[in-house]
Amino acid sequence: MTATDSSGRKPTLAVVGATGAVGTVMLDILSTRRDVYGEIRLVASARSAGRKLSVRGEQTEVLALAPEVFDGVDIAMFDVPDAVSASWAPVAAARGAVVVDNSGAFRMESDVPLVVPEVNADAVRDRPRGIIANPNCTTLSMIVAIGALHDQYGLNELVVASYQAASGAGQEGIDALYDQLERVGGDRELGHRPGDVRSAVGELGPFPAPLALNVVPWAGSLQDGGWSSEELKVRNESRKILGLPDLRVAATCVRVPVVTTHSLAVHAVFDAPVDQREAQAILAGSPGVVLVDDPEGYEFPTPADVVGTDPTWVGRVRRSLDDPNALDLFLCGDNLRKGAALNTAQIAELVAAELTG
Amino acid sequence: MTATDSSGRKPTLAVVGATGAVGTVMLDILSTRRDVYGEIRLVASARSAGRKLSVRGEQTEVLALAPEVFDGVDIAMFDVPDAVSASWAPVAAARGAVVVDNSGAFRMESDVPLVVPEVNADAVRDRPRGIIANPNCTTLSMIVAIGALHDQYGLNELVVASYQAASGAGQEGIDALYDQLERVGGDRELGHRPGDVRSAVGELGPFPAPLALNVVPWAGSLQDGGWSSEELKVRNESRKILGLPDLRVAATCVRVPVVTTHSLAVHAVFDAPVDQREAQAILAGSPGVVLVDDPEGYEFPTPADVVGTDPTWVGRVRRSLDDPNALDLFLCGDNLRKGAALNTAQIAELVAAELTG
Repeated sequence: MTATDSSGRKPTLAVVGATGAVGTVMLDILSTRRDVYGEIRLVASARSAGRKLSVRGEQTEVLALAPEVFDGVDIAMFDVPDAVSASWAPVAAARGAVVVDNSGAFRMESDVPLVVPEVNADAVRDRPRGIIANPNCTTLSMIVAIGALHDQYGLNELVVASYQAASGAGQEGIDALYDQLERVGGDRELGHRPGDVRSAVGELGPFPAPLALNVVPWAGSLQDGGWSSEELKVRNESRKILGLPDLRVAATCVRVPVVTTHSLAVHAVFDAPVDQREAQAILAGSPGVVLVDDPEGYEFPTPADVVGTDPTWVGRVRRSLDDPNALDLFLCGDNLRKGAALNTAQIAELVAAELTG
Repeated sequence: MTATDSSGRKPTLAVVGATGAVGTVMLDILSTRRDVYGEIRLVASARSAGRKLSVRGEQTEVLALAPEVFDGVDIAMFDVPDAVSASWAPVAAARGAVVVDNSGAFRMESDVPLVVPEVNADAVRDRPRGIIANPNCTTLSMIVAIGALHDQYGLNELVVASYQAASGAGQEGIDALYDQLERVGGDRELGHRPGDVRSAVGELGPFPAPLALNVVPWAGSLQDGGWSSEELKVRNESRKILGLPDLRVAATCVRVPVVTTHSLAVHAVFDAPVDQREAQAILAGSPGVVLVDDPEGYEFPTPADVVGTDPTWVGRVRRSLDDPNALDLFLCGDNLRKGAALNTAQIAELVAAELTG
C-alpha cells in the first residue's frame, strides 16, 4: 500500500508511548512498512524525552508529551496506560489527528469503534470522536480465528481459559519473570512443598503470586461477582467486535510463566453443526490465521514457536464429543504484535489509506 | 481408624512401584498412617530390588515383582505403568489381594469400580475382579469439588482447561523441567523470537515441545477426532465416578512449567440456577475441599501454595454472567497426592476397614 494524498504527501504519524514494551515492538513493525507514512514523531513521558530510538533505520529523538506535538499529525497511535490515553487522546483528536488507542479507556464507548481489521474493518470509518480503539491483547489473541468460524457457523457461546504471558503486564512483568527464573533455575528441590517457590522467587513484581514455577489465576482488577477486569474485557470486547451483543461468554484468565505470547483454550458453541475438517479448512484459509494441527506429528502451536510472528496460530481443532455444534481449539498469538502493536498498525494503515485515497 | 480383624491382625499391604514418583509420595503418606497396616511390602522392578526405602520410620528392602510377593497380602497398591498393571494386577488378585490400581489399565472396565472416597465410597464393595481403580490425576484434581456441587445443583456439562504439572509425566518429567529451567534461568533475552526457547532448553524429555518458558497443549496419546487420551480420561472418568453416563464434557489438557500440582479452569453447567455465595459455602463445607476465594486480597489457589497438601483447593468461584445455571471456577490439587497416592491410600483404607470390620 502506498499512502499519498492528492498532493503526494504521506500522512504524519505520532507514536505515543514509543519507549514502552508495546511501543518498542511498534517501532519494529513501522520499520517494515516504509511507504506508509511521511514524518514519524516519537512521543513519550518527559522522563524519556531526548532519548533517540531507531525507526525505519533512522535515529529519531523522543519528544515529551505535550499538546503541540500533535500539530500537523494525521494519525496518533497511543500505547500508554488507560489514564494517559483518557487525558491525551482527546487532545490529539482536537488538534486534528485520528487517534488509534491501545488502552482500555475508550473500548466500550458507544461512539468509539473497536476494530480488528480482519473482522470489522468497515467500523473504522464511523469515529465521531476521532478515536478508534484497539482491543485487549487477550481478546485479540483469538478473535480473528473465532470471527472466521462465526462467519461460517454463527457463534452462540464462548468458554475461554487463558494462558497469558508476563509481558501482558508490560516490561515490569517481563523483568519480574526473568528475575524469578534466575533465582529458581538450578534449584532441583523447589516445587514440592507449599510455599517453597514463594520463598525462592524474591519480588513478585506486578503479579499477585509467584510466576516462575507457578500459574496465577488473576489478571487486572476486581469487578462485580468476583470477575477480573481482564475476563470482562474478553466478554465485552468479543461481543462488540463481532457485533453480537448477546453472545454468551465465560472466561477465566490465568497468567503463566511465558515471556510473550498469550494462549487460549476455547470451547466455541455455534448455531449450526460443525465439522472438524471443514473448520480446519476455514481457519487455514483465513487471512491472519495459521493452522498447525497435526497432533500425531506433535504439531500444534506453542508460545515458544509463535512469539515474534504476526498471525493467530490455531491447533487442536476438535468437534466436541457431546455437542455437534461445538468446537474445542487451542490458539496462540503474540500479545505484543497482533495483540497490541500489529493490530494498532493495521488500523492506522486503514486510516492512512482512507486519508490519502 | 484402627484396622484389625477379629484376631487382631492388621492387613498386610504391598506397594508395587514403590520407587517411582507416586510411590515415593505414597511412602510419605503411609508413614503418617501407622495404625492401619501390619506388614508393608515394598515391590518394584528387578532393577530396584534390594534398595532400602524408609516407610513408617523403618528401612524396608524393596522386593522384585514376582507372583510370590503377593502371598499373604490383603491389599496391593499398584503405582506402575498401564502395561505393568494390566499384567500383574490380576496376578495379585488371583493370590487373594484386593488390588487398588492407579494406572489407566482398568478404569473404564465395567466390572472394576473407579473410586473417589468423598464422592462414591460405596462403589469399593462391588469389585468382582478384586480390582479397584484410582482415577487419573487430572480428573482427581477437580472431581471432589465438582461432586459436591453436583449433589446440590445436578451437573449437566463440564468445560475444562487444564494447567498440568511436569510430574504428571513422572520423575522423567520433573527432571526435564529442572534441566530446562537450569538452562534458561538467567538468560534475559529468551522468549521474544520464534524458536529461541526451543534452541535453549536442550532435551525435551517426555514432552513434545519445550516446557520451560512455554505451555504445551498435549498430554497422552492421540485418539479419534484429534483428542488426547488425557482429555478423554477427564470426560469418561468424570462420567463414571459421578454416575452420569451422558454428562457433556469437553476438556483441553495443557502442560505448564510447574513441578507438581495440576490446576483447572472449569465451566460447570448445572440443571438448576446457581448462587455464588451458596456455591462457595457448599465448597467450604465439603470434606477434602478448601475454599480460598478472596480476589480482593489476592487470595486464590496457586500450585506453588498448594503443592504437598492433601485437599482440592478451589477459588475464583463466579456465577457465569450469561448463564444462571453455570459456575466458573479455578481448582488446584497436588497430582501426586490427591491426584494419585492419597486417593489410592484412601481407597485402600476403605478396604482395610471392610476387611477388619
